[in-house]
Amino acid sequence: MDELLEDLVQKYLPFTNQGQLANYIPELTKVDKNALGIYVVSSDGKSSFAGDYQKRFTMQSIIKPILLLLALMDNGEDLVREHVGVEATGKPFDAINYTDQALLSEHLNPMVNMGAILLCTLLSGKNYSHKFQRLLELTRNLSGNSEIQVNEAVYESEKRTGNRNRALAFLLKSQGIIQDEVEDVLDCYFRACSIEADCKDLANIAFVFANRGRRPVSEERLFPARYAHYVNAILMTCGMYDGSGDFAIRVGVPAKSGVGGGIMAITPTRMGIGIYSPGLDTKGNSLAGIQVLEELSQKLYLSVF
Amino acid sequence: MDELLEDLVQKYLPFTNQGQLANYIPELTKVDKNALGIYVVSSDGKSSFAGDYQKRFTMQSIIKPILLLLALMDNGEDLVREHVGVEATGKPFDAINYTDQALLSEHLNPMVNMGAILLCTLLSGKNYSHKFQRLLELTRNLSGNSEIQVNEAVYESEKRTGNRNRALAFLLKSQGIIQDEVEDVLDCYFRACSIEADCKDLANIAFVFANRGRRPVSEERLFPARYAHYVNAILMTCGMYDGSGDFAIRVGVPAKSGVGGGIMAITPTRMGIGIYSPGLDTKGNSLAGIQVLEELSQKLYLSVF
Amino acid sequence: MDELLEDLVQKYLPFTNQGQLANYIPELTKVDKNALGIYVVSSDGKSSFAGDYQKRFTMQSIIKPILLLLALMDNGEDLVREHVGVEATGKPFDAINYTDQALLSEHLNPMVNMGAILLCTLLSGKNYSHKFQRLLELTRNLSGNSEIQVNEAVYESEKRTGNRNRALAFLLKSQGIIQDEVEDVLDCYFRACSIEADCKDLANIAFVFANRGRRPVSEERLFPARYAHYVNAILMTCGMYDGSGDFAIRVGVPAKSGVGGGIMAITPTRMGIGIYSPGLDTKGNSLAGIQVLEELSQKLYLSVF
Amino acid sequence: MDELLEDLVQKYLPFTNQGQLANYIPELTKVDKNALGIYVVSSDGKSSFAGDYQKRFTMQSIIKPILLLLALMDNGEDLVREHVGVEATGKPFDAINYTDQALLSEHLNPMVNMGAILLCTLLSGKNYSHKFQRLLELTRNLSGNSEIQVNEAVYESEKRTGNRNRALAFLLKSQGIIQDEVEDVLDCYFRACSIEADCKDLANIAFVFANRGRRPVSEERLFPARYAHYVNAILMTCGMYDGSGDFAIRVGVPAKSGVGGGIMAITPTRMGIGIYSPGLDTKGNSLAGIQVLEELSQKLYLSVF
Repeated sequence: MDELLEDLVQKYLPFTNQGQLANYIPELTKVDKNALGIYVVSSDGKSSFAGDYQKRFTMQSIIKPILLLLALMDNGEDLVREHVGVEATGKPFDAINYTDQALLSEHLNPMVNMGAILLCTLLSGKNYSHKFQRLLELTRNLSGNSEIQVNEAVYESEKRTGNRNRALAFLLKSQGIIQDEVEDVLDCYFRACSIEADCKDLANIAFVFANRGRRPVSEERLFPARYAHYVNAILMTCGMYDGSGDFAIRVGVPAKSGVGGGIMAITPTRMGIGIYSPGLDTKGNSLAGIQVLEELSQKLYLSVF
Repeated sequence: MDELLEDLVQKYLPFTNQGQLANYIPELTKVDKNALGIYVVSSDGKSSFAGDYQKRFTMQSIIKPILLLLALMDNGEDLVREHVGVEATGKPFDAINYTDQALLSEHLNPMVNMGAILLCTLLSGKNYSHKFQRLLELTRNLSGNSEIQVNEAVYESEKRTGNRNRALAFLLKSQGIIQDEVEDVLDCYFRACSIEADCKDLANIAFVFANRGRRPVSEERLFPARYAHYVNAILMTCGMYDGSGDFAIRVGVPAKSGVGGGIMAITPTRMGIGIYSPGLDTKGNSLAGIQVLEELSQKLYLSVF
Repeated sequence: MDELLEDLVQKYLPFTNQGQLANYIPELTKVDKNALGIYVVSSDGKSSFAGDYQKRFTMQSIIKPILLLLALMDNGEDLVREHVGVEATGKPFDAINYTDQALLSEHLNPMVNMGAILLCTLLSGKNYSHKFQRLLELTRNLSGNSEIQVNEAVYESEKRTGNRNRALAFLLKSQGIIQDEVEDVLDCYFRACSIEADCKDLANIAFVFANRGRRPVSEERLFPARYAHYVNAILMTCGMYDGSGDFAIRVGVPAKSGVGGGIMAITPTRMGIGIYSPGLDTKGNSLAGIQVLEELSQKLYLSVF
Repeated sequence: MDELLEDLVQKYLPFTNQGQLANYIPELTKVDKNALGIYVVSSDGKSSFAGDYQKRFTMQSIIKPILLLLALMDNGEDLVREHVGVEATGKPFDAINYTDQALLSEHLNPMVNMGAILLCTLLSGKNYSHKFQRLLELTRNLSGNSEIQVNEAVYESEKRTGNRNRALAFLLKSQGIIQDEVEDVLDCYFRACSIEADCKDLANIAFVFANRGRRPVSEERLFPARYAHYVNAILMTCGMYDGSGDFAIRVGVPAKSGVGGGIMAITPTRMGIGIYSPGLDTKGNSLAGIQVLEELSQKLYLSVF
């Protein structure tokens, strides 16, 4: 397995150049475009890895499934469903999901920004600092890495330049869907996107989702199996932005990408996978990362289809 | 003429009840729904009026043509055109005029909020307080009423609750179309909407547009005739929100309505008309106001068509 | 006046090259791109002309105001309004004016294809051949030219290739808005678009609209003044496709263009104008034609604004 | 297993009343709304069934995955991808998947009508009758039932009333995406939708997709495993119309519904399932059918997530 991962990293390293670094915030351009790393946690308790698996990067949209999970844990399935729909929107992640006067929960999805911003308001916590702290704790707990932190430079950069997210949040506010102060909600959201992880962290988190809510080895249950079904299903249909259909065909497992270059891939009952390569394709997904996953899926028959 | 206006006010007074007061900001609901007033300035220098023509109300969207005029005076036609398009959008005044990633000037129009907010940035002035002051001075100058002021309570209310406008402004900012601080730009816009006038003020302003830039009687030129053509044309095609086509058929003159209940109607070469009745139809236009204008247009053959 | 027209034709002849011939049906490409002609009928009964004013061309969308007029004459204003709205759509002439399951009259407009196709069904007549014949007779009557005919080659070409119009008609049918056979309705529509006229015909028709329903000189009334207001208002707001706002500013009169290269311009109470130059701008309007009209409007103060 | 299926049918039979029969073609309303049947084929070669599993119904949209499969078998993956995209559209099955002038393959999806109509043109065959015959043969072959036929009454009804599909096809034609005669293409499509099957047929077909292209028991390969991945992935993301996300969470297997009341569900490597109950929910999916599947999935741990 280690050998296979090593081969894949070597094979696809040259393709890292074909991707584009995310440039919507300045901080994200300050990374090595040629990085490529992978970490795999298997149900037999073994771990394998190759390449730049120790490089840290901000999770960005990869925090969305964890945000969704915490919202589910705090509120239950029905209430979350009532606020944020579950259908694919057929639009980019930062889309304004409606064009007329009404904005309904069915226009929203936990994997697009507008839905994720709304999820922040559903988290328990006495204020947004507290809500965020609970999200960070859950992330640490899922990954088993208590040292996970926010990248402050990225956070500041997001906060300073995140005007489209501000627009989305003010739309929610103008519709009465958000009651709280927009900047408070966004502060939680921007911090969440700026949480830093490495491939191992993603693989460990992914494994808990793959294992339907139980930790590797100890099988300690962290959340109900039902929520793993919920999150995994959403990731399969919407996790890779408007490249989700393509990814379902080529790789065939629930996964979430972030513009920081990470992909967290979940092979139910079998594996958690974390990948990093910051060069993105036109949909905003890690280009070499998907290539590695596609071949890994074929070699190991990972597709659930 | 006075008699005709008096008759029209009496005839349509009962209909004021059918309209709805604007309720998007609390302050606007604190008015007498049964008010109905009209003031007409004619090219022969005579003035006529009836009903509640002395009641003051906030101009709201009626400031947009003056904002456009000042932008034209400050920048010329070409530069304004380059930033803000002139085609009807077919959408409500507070619409998000695009659904995908690009926002082009052709999606904007000076009579919809997004375009009007952008126009604020084009005004000359060393800061937004200065820009606004110049707009207020122009309004006073056009109307010949140096006492025109902002209604502070409405302004505060707009500022506090104007989250949809905030969303529109942050969209402009996120696209790089606005460089300045969003709250500064909006402060100018909210103040502009909160300028208070009465029917006489509107009629006097309208007359200058009708007279292609010259004052009544003295014929003093305040701005080039060309800009009157520009503004009047935009008002004809887009001045009454998505009721502009209907108004063109029924009344047939350039006009601008505001959710404060005012309508400023321009009959080129002949008259300036100001009307007030705060009950609005479903498009957001003064319900009884349009009725009065329709009959006035038929009686006096005002339609340019 | 003849001299002025001659000068304008000479001045703008070189610009005919900058336009593009309509190519959506093969027949329309078989014309001389450098043609430019104008014919003006004035209220004093005089006619003036210059250039290729005798060249014949198909009316295409210029038939729409006549189609609207006949629908109004056959059904009255209320019924027509109930079926086909009057607001600018903010979309191209062949747009599908709705994206969801419901198609309402307010999505339609007499100057966009979908609305015009629906208008065909409102014409009186025992069948679509009869409906069309009545439209042709009205066109002849308005123009005073009893020899006006369909260009059969263009008609055949339209019929053979008009699949987007077929799609629009089947959408109307699938919504139950059209009851009759789609091909019958479209046959009427395609014939209507293929009616051939010259600048003099357009000028004469335009004059009747300018004169609010009365013929030149004889002042014989052909239709109620009310319908002229209706049609002229629609032309001002929507007559030049999604270039209507621009045209209102630059020229300032109700007008209708067709992709055959004609423009029919109406200066209320004063003139009827027919122009022909088949090179189109990006909006589908005669490029040199608009240039001539813009200067003519400035020279003769034609703008209603 | 038979007992479990029997229990589920009894339990959910009362809910059949809550659904609505499809009424878009008259023929579909002539069925017993209280029917509910299920048939399951397992990888161990056993079959189980309960309720009205022998009732025949038209496949409607359930033919789409088979149409996609045949297009893949005839053309390979790349060519099919080039013509018809794979992303969820976020819109209803009969949506017009674009609003502007360009229609791109990425606006299409094999599970929405516009994409499926286009797939018909990709089938091999000397004419549309031949293309359809090949599709019918494949359906018979996959199901192992050589008696599968078109329901002629439904086919006639579809053909007579299918004007929205006509509109969609003419849009494709007007964009040059379809070259052939629209009525020929639609005839193939309408026949395909009118193919009649029962629960057993659907279960057998589903099993071949679940078994990645091989028949039950004999393990005879009918098509490459790759195409099963392709079709199953599309079904997971888009198979249940704009209820696909909800179905992924609640049931968690690739499935395709039809407005005839059938659902074909695929549990990879394990089972093929056919369900029938003609009462539909608001999304157009069999209401009681989904309820049965949801509980079956929970009881047997069918979800791939």
